[in-house]
Amino acid sequence: MADKPSIPKGTRDFTPLEMARRNFIFDTIRKIFTTYGYLPIETPAMENLSSLMGKYGEEGDKLLFRILNSGDFRSGIAREELVSAPAGKLGNMISGKGLRYDLTVPFARFVVQHRGEILFPFRRYQIQPVWRADRPQRGRYREFYQCDVDVIGSDSLLNEYELVCIMDDVFTALGMKTVIRVNNRRVLAGVVEVMGEADRMTEITVSIDKLEKVGMKGVMEELREKGVGAASLEKLQPLLTRKGSNRENLDFLKGYLEGSAAGKGGLEEMNRLLDYLEADPPQAEVEFDMTLARGLDYYTGTIFEVVSDEVKMGSICGGGRYDDLTGIFGLEGVSGVGISFGADRIYDVLEQLDRFPAQATMDTRVLFVNFGEREAMHVFPVLGRLRKEGIPSELYPDPVRMKKQMSYANARNIPFVALMGEEELREGVVTLKEMASGSQERLTPDALVRRLSVQ
Amino acid sequence: MADKPSIPKGTRDFTPLEMARRNFIFDTIRKIFTTYGYLPIETPAMENLSSLMGKYGEEGDKLLFRILNSGDFRSGIAREELVSAPAGKLGNMISGKGLRYDLTVPFARFVVQHRGEILFPFRRYQIQPVWRADRPQRGRYREFYQCDVDVIGSDSLLNEYELVCIMDDVFTALGMKTVIRVNNRRVLAGVVEVMGEADRMTEITVSIDKLEKVGMKGVMEELREKGVGAASLEKLQPLLTRKGSNRENLDFLKGYLEGSAAGKGGLEEMNRLLDYLEADPPQAEVEFDMTLARGLDYYTGTIFEVVSDEVKMGSICGGGRYDDLTGIFGLEGVSGVGISFGADRIYDVLEQLDRFPAQATMDTRVLFVNFGEREAMHVFPVLGRLRKEGIPSELYPDPVRMKKQMSYANARNIPFVALMGEEELREGVVTLKEMASGSQERLTPDALVRRLSVQ
Repeated sequence: MADKPSIPKGTRDFTPLEMARRNFIFDTIRKIFTTYGYLPIETPAMENLSSLMGKYGEEGDKLLFRILNSGDFRSGIAREELVSAPAGKLGNMISGKGLRYDLTVPFARFVVQHRGEILFPFRRYQIQPVWRADRPQRGRYREFYQCDVDVIGSDSLLNEYELVCIMDDVFTALGMKTVIRVNNRRVLAGVVEVMGEADRMTEITVSIDKLEKVGMKGVMEELREKGVGAASLEKLQPLLTRKGSNRENLDFLKGYLEGSAAGKGGLEEMNRLLDYLEADPPQAEVEFDMTLARGLDYYTGTIFEVVSDEVKMGSICGGGRYDDLTGIFGLEGVSGVGISFGADRIYDVLEQLDRFPAQATMDTRVLFVNFGEREAMHVFPVLGRLRKEGIPSELYPDPVRMKKQMSYANARNIPFVALMGEEELREGVVTLKEMASGSQERLTPDALVRRLSVQ
Repeated sequence: MADKPSIPKGTRDFTPLEMARRNFIFDTIRKIFTTYGYLPIETPAMENLSSLMGKYGEEGDKLLFRILNSGDFRSGIAREELVSAPAGKLGNMISGKGLRYDLTVPFARFVVQHRGEILFPFRRYQIQPVWRADRPQRGRYREFYQCDVDVIGSDSLLNEYELVCIMDDVFTALGMKTVIRVNNRRVLAGVVEVMGEADRMTEITVSIDKLEKVGMKGVMEELREKGVGAASLEKLQPLLTRKGSNRENLDFLKGYLEGSAAGKGGLEEMNRLLDYLEADPPQAEVEFDMTLARGLDYYTGTIFEVVSDEVKMGSICGGGRYDDLTGIFGLEGVSGVGISFGADRIYDVLEQLDRFPAQATMDTRVLFVNFGEREAMHVFPVLGRLRKEGIPSELYPDPVRMKKQMSYANARNIPFVALMGEEELREGVVTLKEMASGSQERLTPDALVRRLSVQ
C-alpha cells in the first residue's frame, strides 16, 4: 500500500477552491431554474439495467457502467455461457443495475412511475452527476454533472421560448458570451424528404451534424460513402453553404420545403419561436442553424445547442422537444421539452477565460490564536456568539508558536486574527488584528461581534 | 416494456416536497460547518477497488458495490477461474472499481494524494451519497447521504470539543432533542486490560456495544460463548449495570482503571473534554457512556454517537479520533478526528416528529393565465422583470380553460394569479388575484413587481 493512491481515470477530486467555483455555477443555474418556477427532483445513481439498455443507441449501451450483482453473481448461468457468451451479453447477466448515463431517461422513468402523484404540466429540474465509460479527453469526463430542466405534459411552443430565455439568463449571469443555435427536427425531416431520402433520416442527419467539424466537402464525402446518390447530394448542397440572417434562411427554406408537410410544419414552429424571441430579445445571439441535428433519436421538434462565443469547447448546453419519451416506459402521448447544462464544460470555459468572480464563498473570517488550554476556555463563549451571528470563526487547535498560527491564517486568507492572552483576559477585551493592514484594535466581545458583522 | 418501471431496491426517488425537506437538512448542516471554518471537498463516486478493499472489515468488503470493467472483462482470466474461483475473488478480477462506501476512507485517500497542496491542520467537510449492498430495512438504504466533518493534522482535544459543539448546534438548529454519547477507545482498552483480556479488545467491545440492544444478560451470554472466562466477566459486570452522572462514572473508573496506563490516559482525556463542555454548556445532554464502542477499528481515542431523545432510530451521527487513518495509504503519523451525520435517518426522525418547518422553499409566487399567443407575448417582458427581481413566476404554457389553469395554481399552492387579457392590455395594467382571499387588484407592471417583492 506504499504506492501513491489514485482515482479512476476520467474522474476527479474537487478541492475547496474548485468547490467554490463549481458552487458558483450550480447556484446560478439553480437560482434561475427556481425563478422560472421549476421544482427539484432527484433519482438514484443506480437504475435497473433494463431501464437504461437500448435508450442511448448501441454505442450508449457499451458506455454504461454496470454494477456487478452482489453475492454469487454466477448462480444460474451455464458454464458455457460464463466462458463463451459475448462480453456484453454476459455483462448483462451478471449485472442487474447500471449507473445513470443521463438525467433524461431517469426523468422519463420517474414521470411514468409517479404519474399518479404528478401535476401536469410538470416542470422539474435535476442537478446530479452522470457516468459514462467514454474515453477521457479534454472536456470529457467519466463522471460529470448535468443540470436538466424540462416541462412535460405540454405541447405549447411557449415552453421552447422559455427554455431559450433560461439559457440566455444562465449564461448572462455566468458572464459568458454564447451563441444559441436552434433548429427543428421536422425541418431536417423535410430536407431529407426533398432529397428523396426520407427513410434515411438518422444516417443523413448524423453526417450533416458534422459540418462544423469536417466541412462541406467532408459531409458530402461521408454521405457519398453511405451511398447517397448524386442527385440527392446536389439538392442538399445549397443548405450546407448558405449564409444569411435567420429570416433570410427561413424565406429560403419556405421555397425549398414547399413539397414537404413535415418540413412546412417545422418551419412554421421555427417562425413562431423567432417571433416570440423578437418580442423581448435575449442577450445571446440566437442562430437558426439548418444543419444542427443533435444525435439523439428521441427528439421530434425544436432542438437547441449552446456554444461559447469565446472558447472552442463543443456544446455547453443542449436539448429539444421529445414527443414520446415516456413511451419507452409504457406511457404514450406525453410530450415534453427540455435542456441540459454541462456544468463541467462551463467550468472549463470560465476557467480558461479566467472569469470566475472573486471568492464570494463563506470562508473563515477570524482566527483566534491558541495560547493554551486555560485561555482557550475563555475563547469558547466568544466563538459561540460569533458563530450564532453566522460569522465563520476558528480557534487554532494547538498551542504552537505564534508564527506558525499566523502563517496558517495567511495561507488560508483569513482576514482577521483575534488574540485573547493573559492581558486581554484580565481586561475583558479581545485584540483584533487586521491581516492586510496590520492594524490592531482592542474590543469588548460585544464590539467584536459588531465589528466582524458589519463588513 | 409495458411493466411499470421501478428502481433498485434500497434506493429512492425524491419528489419536490422531499427535496425541499432534504435541502433544509443539508443547508442547515452546511451552514454550521461553514461557521466553524470547515471547507468543502468532493471525491468521485467510484474509487479504485484497491482503495476500498480491506478498509471496512470482511463484512464491509462484501457490501461494496463493484463496477464491472468495460469491454472484455474476461480477458486474461483463465477458464477455470471464471467457472470455479470464489465469487468474491472473481468479482475483484473483473471489477477494478467500486462505489464509495463511506466518506472517511476517500478522505484519507484524498489527504495522502493531495498532501503537497493541503494546509494542515486541514478542516474539511464533505456531503455526498455513499452506497452499501446492505439488506434494506427501516432507516437503512443502499444509497444514502453522509455529511462528514473532519480535522486532520492536529492532536488537540479542542477538536473533539468543537465537534461536540457542531453536533449540538446542528441538532438544535434542526429542532431535535438528542443525547450525545461519548467514550474513549483507550478507556475500553483499559477495561479489557483489567479484565485480563487485552488481546481480545475488538471481539469484546463488539459485544459490549450491543448492551442497549440485547441487555446485560445478552452481552454476558455472548461473551461466554466467545470463551471469555468467569473471572473476566465478573470484572466487567459492574460497568454494564452502572448508572450515575458523568462525574460519578469518571470517579468510579479512576479506581477501576488504576492498573492500566491506556485506561488512565483515556480517562484523563474524557475528564478534560467534560471540563471544556462545562465552560459553555451545550443544549443536548452529553453522556459519558462506558459501553459505547463504535464498530470501526480505526478509532483510537474519543468516540461519539448521537441518538434522538424522542424517536427510536439508531445512531444519527457518529465518529471519533483516528490516529493513523492515512497510514493505510502510506502516510504515517497523521492524527485526525471527525464525525458523520446521517442525513437520511435525520430525515426519518424529523418526518416522524412532523417537525419540518413550513415550506420556506423558493416556489412559484405568481402564475400568469394564458389567454392565447397574442396576449402571452405581452406577458414576456413582465415575467422577465419579475424574474430579474428573483420572484419565481410562470406563464401557464397552454391557452386552456381558465378553470384548468386555476386548479393548477391551487394544486401547486401558488399564492397569486395574474391576468393580462384584452382589457388589461388596453389599459396597460395587470389584474392580480390573491388566491387565499380571492381579492383582486389592478396594478401597473411597476406596482406589480413592488407588490410581489414586498411580502
